[in-house]
Amino acid sequence: MDGVVQYVRRPGIVDLGWGHPDPGSLPTGEWAEATGEALRRFGWTALTYGAGAGPGPLIEWLRANLAEVDAAAPRASEVFVTGGASQGLEMVCALLARPGDVVLVDAPTYHLALRIIADREVDLRPAPTDDGGILPAGTEELIRRLDSEGHRVAFVYLVPTYGNPTGASLDGNRRRELVEVAARTGTTLVEDDTYRELTYEARAPRSLWSIAAGGPVVRLGSFAKTVAPGLRLGWITADRSFVRRLVDRGFVDSGGGVNHLAAVTMAQFGASGRYARHVRTVRELYRTRRDALVGAVRGQVPGARFRVPDGGWFLWLGLPAGVDARSLLAGAERAGVSYLPGNRFHLDPGAGSDRLRLSFSLLAPDALAEGAQRLGRVIAGAVAAAQL
Amino acid sequence: MDGVVQYVRRPGIVDLGWGHPDPGSLPTGEWAEATGEALRRFGWTALTYGAGAGPGPLIEWLRANLAEVDAAAPRASEVFVTGGASQGLEMVCALLARPGDVVLVDAPTYHLALRIIADREVDLRPAPTDDGGILPAGTEELIRRLDSEGHRVAFVYLVPTYGNPTGASLDGNRRRELVEVAARTGTTLVEDDTYRELTYEARAPRSLWSIAAGGPVVRLGSFAKTVAPGLRLGWITADRSFVRRLVDRGFVDSGGGVNHLAAVTMAQFGASGRYARHVRTVRELYRTRRDALVGAVRGQVPGARFRVPDGGWFLWLGLPAGVDARSLLAGAERAGVSYLPGNRFHLDPGAGSDRLRLSFSLLAPDALAEGAQRLGRVIAGAVAAAQL
Repeated sequence: MDGVVQYVRRPGIVDLGWGHPDPGSLPTGEWAEATGEALRRFGWTALTYGAGAGPGPLIEWLRANLAEVDAAAPRASEVFVTGGASQGLEMVCALLARPGDVVLVDAPTYHLALRIIADREVDLRPAPTDDGGILPAGTEELIRRLDSEGHRVAFVYLVPTYGNPTGASLDGNRRRELVEVAARTGTTLVEDDTYRELTYEARAPRSLWSIAAGGPVVRLGSFAKTVAPGLRLGWITADRSFVRRLVDRGFVDSGGGVNHLAAVTMAQFGASGRYARHVRTVRELYRTRRDALVGAVRGQVPGARFRVPDGGWFLWLGLPAGVDARSLLAGAERAGVSYLPGNRFHLDPGAGSDRLRLSFSLLAPDALAEGAQRLGRVIAGAVAAAQL
Repeated sequence: MDGVVQYVRRPGIVDLGWGHPDPGSLPTGEWAEATGEALRRFGWTALTYGAGAGPGPLIEWLRANLAEVDAAAPRASEVFVTGGASQGLEMVCALLARPGDVVLVDAPTYHLALRIIADREVDLRPAPTDDGGILPAGTEELIRRLDSEGHRVAFVYLVPTYGNPTGASLDGNRRRELVEVAARTGTTLVEDDTYRELTYEARAPRSLWSIAAGGPVVRLGSFAKTVAPGLRLGWITADRSFVRRLVDRGFVDSGGGVNHLAAVTMAQFGASGRYARHVRTVRELYRTRRDALVGAVRGQVPGARFRVPDGGWFLWLGLPAGVDARSLLAGAERAGVSYLPGNRFHLDPGAGSDRLRLSFSLLAPDALAEGAQRLGRVIAGAVAAAQL
């Protein structure tokens, strides 16, 4: 629908670029039911100015849910309900960073988070990384060097669990070391934890927030991937003094809870069992799609290098030597397939051109297979041309 | 309900301090119906990432509605859908002001807007005013003086229509002059226009935005007063380049429209005729309450000075000489009535102590009458004590 959604359909193109949910999975009927129930259950309190940190019943439900899907549950005073992870990150930037501060980010990392952080007029720099993600010792060294040069490092942003774009997760040792580095250097970690519940093999790794146990981690959660992005609903766990600062923002004091009706409706969606059922369904759906894309890429894309993602929505595909993700794009689109070049996920415009991000969330298995086939032909052509 | 809403009931106190809607007026059943209809009409597009500026159908409906309630309708490219006027003001501050800039505000003005603006770490100063509101010539003089002193005036914030706390509106001449001052000095006016449709006598005065016709006015609208605050839904009209800058904020680019499902549901609430019916109902309701409070204050409060508000939610009551709104408060609460002292609406803590803001939105006519009676006794006591 033109002018209603972000998504733009391009006829003839299998577009693996969109990190958007499967339209068929979005719970239109169930959300309507939950809304009716919430408006009966909460009455007028669902429609007036809501509690600043979010409604108590949603916070209680979130605590119970996090006790299941993470290694620790927050206290009620450690939760703030947001208008989605992006809106949450905007608030976190306002509180933690001042214009001119340095913010370190994982590399590669979620490209649109870079834009949110840049809006705070900070100096964005990549943290040191290798194939396993961010390097704690190197990050500590960098923070200390920046500090000695008179810079203030406002925070470190990363997506350590089923990351965007890599689909990979930071291992347990690095998680612990990174939290220790944060504590030692007095640096806050901003943990984008929006893919935690889309896990296809095992339980997700414990969050940095749970490891820090009240320490310097602000964790961003979301209902965009588990339920629906259009709700604009998410949450933050952080220590209670930080939550108090969020509640104390002028616009929250004035308008009350950031997305109150959606929040009380989610409390009902959770309490009624719909959330648990829905997450089971989408987990199965996206696992199937991941398997479809992985199988098709393996079979159809010559020289494909990738790790099978354990969760999330993305396959981070390494290209054969000599093939550049950006140069390939126009030809790929002429051949009827699209993707995001790896460069988009790096601050350094020269980095990541040997990779591309393929999303398996939006499209059905048939389309994923067709996309992989087209991509395979285009890459084979590029390899052949490079060898001429 | 504890922990669900902002509102805190204090037993035994008729609390005229809350600028909150009548709980009984909140359209719980109708919103549930509209949600069901919207989810059928828009299907999955209601639940995925929405268009950054807001969904086209809501923008079209808003244009038609503004053509009725204001002197001009915006173009579609001049509208941005927000998460409420407070969230909109937060965005406007981020785009227009830099830390250290001067922001001029009407005096008295909406007290919680002062907190939102202050979060941007600006230097807030009162614009010159008299009983008729902001003084255009004096404001121009002040802007030029600040400019010559090396200050940058980021914008002027005011609530010119059925203002909070005064209930008064700026007259037509001052509106035109103020827009001319803004154009001449290159200063943006931020017009908080959230009470426009709660008009009890005649059509509301035309907005500064409509007078400026594409000039330097950013106007904040809201559905909090016309439908329900818990929706967290509002809108901005501004020139298209400013709207493009709003859409271009990183968190909007990442999360899509700021409150997408609420926005498409409002499109349905409007298109179905529910909005028009509901506004007629609440206008009648609040007119009745205004009349009840005005009558009771006239009859019960000795030496009361006020203008009958033509719209909005507030009566701005002048106290008899020698009675201080702050000193009176503790005794008033002991006597079972509360209000907001006038000082709360001024930057200067010494200003406004001869006034108090009484809200007639939350409470039924009987309670308003009871509150006025108690207030009258307390004020009579204070007058008697002052004369001893």
